[in-house]
Amino acid sequence: MIAGVAPGVSVVDINHNVPPHDIRFGALTLWRTAPWLAPGVILAVVDPGVGTTRRPVAISVGGANVVLVGPDNGLLLPAALRLGPITLAVALEQTQADRGATFAGRDLFAPAAARIAMGADLHALGAAVDVRTLQGEPVPTPERRPDGSLRAEVLWIDRFGNAQVNVSPHDAAPLGHVVDVRTGAHIWSARLVAAYADLQADELGLVHDSYELLSISLNAASAAAFTGIRPGDPVWLSRRD
Amino acid sequence: MIAGVAPGVSVVDINHNVPPHDIRFGALTLWRTAPWLAPGVILAVVDPGVGTTRRPVAISVGGANVVLVGPDNGLLLPAALRLGPITLAVALEQTQADRGATFAGRDLFAPAAARIAMGADLHALGAAVDVRTLQGEPVPTPERRPDGSLRAEVLWIDRFGNAQVNVSPHDAAPLGHVVDVRTGAHIWSARLVAAYADLQADELGLVHDSYELLSISLNAASAAAFTGIRPGDPVWLSRRD
Amino acid sequence: MIAGVAPGVSVVDINHNVPPHDIRFGALTLWRTAPWLAPGVILAVVDPGVGTTRRPVAISVGGANVVLVGPDNGLLLPAALRLGPITLAVALEQTQADRGATFAGRDLFAPAAARIAMGADLHALGAAVDVRTLQGEPVPTPERRPDGSLRAEVLWIDRFGNAQVNVSPHDAAPLGHVVDVRTGAHIWSARLVAAYADLQADELGLVHDSYELLSISLNAASAAAFTGIRPGDPVWLSRRD
Repeated sequence: MIAGVAPGVSVVDINHNVPPHDIRFGALTLWRTAPWLAPGVILAVVDPGVGTTRRPVAISVGGANVVLVGPDNGLLLPAALRLGPITLAVALEQTQADRGATFAGRDLFAPAAARIAMGADLHALGAAVDVRTLQGEPVPTPERRPDGSLRAEVLWIDRFGNAQVNVSPHDAAPLGHVVDVRTGAHIWSARLVAAYADLQADELGLVHDSYELLSISLNAASAAAFTGIRPGDPVWLSRRD
Repeated sequence: MIAGVAPGVSVVDINHNVPPHDIRFGALTLWRTAPWLAPGVILAVVDPGVGTTRRPVAISVGGANVVLVGPDNGLLLPAALRLGPITLAVALEQTQADRGATFAGRDLFAPAAARIAMGADLHALGAAVDVRTLQGEPVPTPERRPDGSLRAEVLWIDRFGNAQVNVSPHDAAPLGHVVDVRTGAHIWSARLVAAYADLQADELGLVHDSYELLSISLNAASAAAFTGIRPGDPVWLSRRD
Repeated sequence: MIAGVAPGVSVVDINHNVPPHDIRFGALTLWRTAPWLAPGVILAVVDPGVGTTRRPVAISVGGANVVLVGPDNGLLLPAALRLGPITLAVALEQTQADRGATFAGRDLFAPAAARIAMGADLHALGAAVDVRTLQGEPVPTPERRPDGSLRAEVLWIDRFGNAQVNVSPHDAAPLGHVVDVRTGAHIWSARLVAAYADLQADELGLVHDSYELLSISLNAASAAAFTGIRPGDPVWLSRRD
């Protein structure tokens, strides 16, 4: 559909393996990769509400020279907010046929993204909407407790079994070089390191990862399988006694 | 191989996950997507008979400005017939080396498709063959019984667990808004709806899907897992008593 | 990252499904496909030592007009040696930030590959290194025993269950048309054939495959599942008594 509308435009595939209906997974995929995609048009579809009243939108982040296109269901907002202030959002105009469609990615979003890539004005695609009505939340930040410990959240398990948490190396610095990592009833000790290979066999670590966050990791093995940690789990990080 | 012969040509990947040797799955993939791929050259390979006497072919559908390239084993014909009348078919000429090859996709079909994309005449690639000798069947249509019920077939289970049947909304209209769906010994009641989200939790529906057919579906859950329906299964649709 | 540095360059994806940390799998993927990728820049990353002292390198094979870019951990050398004599290798210069990164594919290797694709001189990317210090081994050749039999190795199981061995049809010719295949305690008889479809149901064969090697195969079924053979297993081929 894109090649038909915008023959010269280069298309880069990011991920076709979002689990069905998993908006959170899709939103975090975009949030992680968005800084390296700009400038350009970012098309994303995880759309369990397709064919209902959920709005199809295009969201412009002027400063980053990016437009995000997709359903207004929380998929786009974390990435948009990370890239900068939203300068304009429009609800994509739909024909009657579009409204009944179950494949909006093909019939509505891809043609709209292609038109934007060719330079179409967003106002030509639909009416402006109040940015404050866009659905979704920014990615949560960790909560610091009075004793200095952090209540964090597992954002993501990658295919190597690294469990990324919403904690930056800067956030964790006050806790020292070895940190207690608690999930439910379990407590592990984890060393902050710069590379997976800095860890001994079976030593759990907090690795400074490539998204400026920390990952609970093992060296060449799956920390997720080892700890049982899953996406969305709460994790407490505290100074080792 | 394509980039070497046709450097400027844009390549769009449709599916690299056809189960091994599953010609029916491949043929339906093409049949579903073909209307959105035209115009262009469509290269497809599911080829358990590679290296044998099965013919390598290029099939031209002149009206749609499409040429399909691949093995003559039933993979290409449903899509070709959907796109319009076949105007020419040729058997691709093979060298002795081609005949012994096990990777015709790389060594024979991709270079031929690239040459066609660059404007080569089909007659330059091989001798014309009688179109009536091409292998394969059109996608089956449902059979209407004297009582108005339909004997249909499950064409496809998508990765969300929707079970697409070979019945259009038009075919099903005489049956009313709620239809009995029978597979083997089981009968379910299913409501015709426009969107997955129009269904209640655990309510089976017949959703007007994005290929102008009906899918047996649940809202945000797998109808295939729920019903045990599999591709190729017969399904009877009848007016609810 | 590549599109940002080299907007007009065509990117062809070969494989994104290398098992985590499996350098051997990645090296054989490159070794198998390299002859069909030349000329061009080949970027490959399987990198369990990312962030450590393993060298990032670019390896030029002048005669084939190919540069391979990636970690110097054995991933690149088999393909480089297959393509021809290595004419130059450089250690890619890293900033302090690169050294701590866990995503060198994005931050270091992709930009370097893109610059090379745009014509950058390798000397501009880093200092030359002694080619004899590059890590890795060529793909092993089979060992011929005094009785004419071959001690071979399973290189690869493809997704159809064909088990490719490091034996060419030429190597196997002295053994005759039917060969004893021994793995551990099991011996099978296998016929040398040109195509999978030349085999009877449940007949094991040695198929002349598309990489000029032999594959232990069944017709439209998985020889790996049937025999229990796995990548890296030793296999003995001998004349049938």
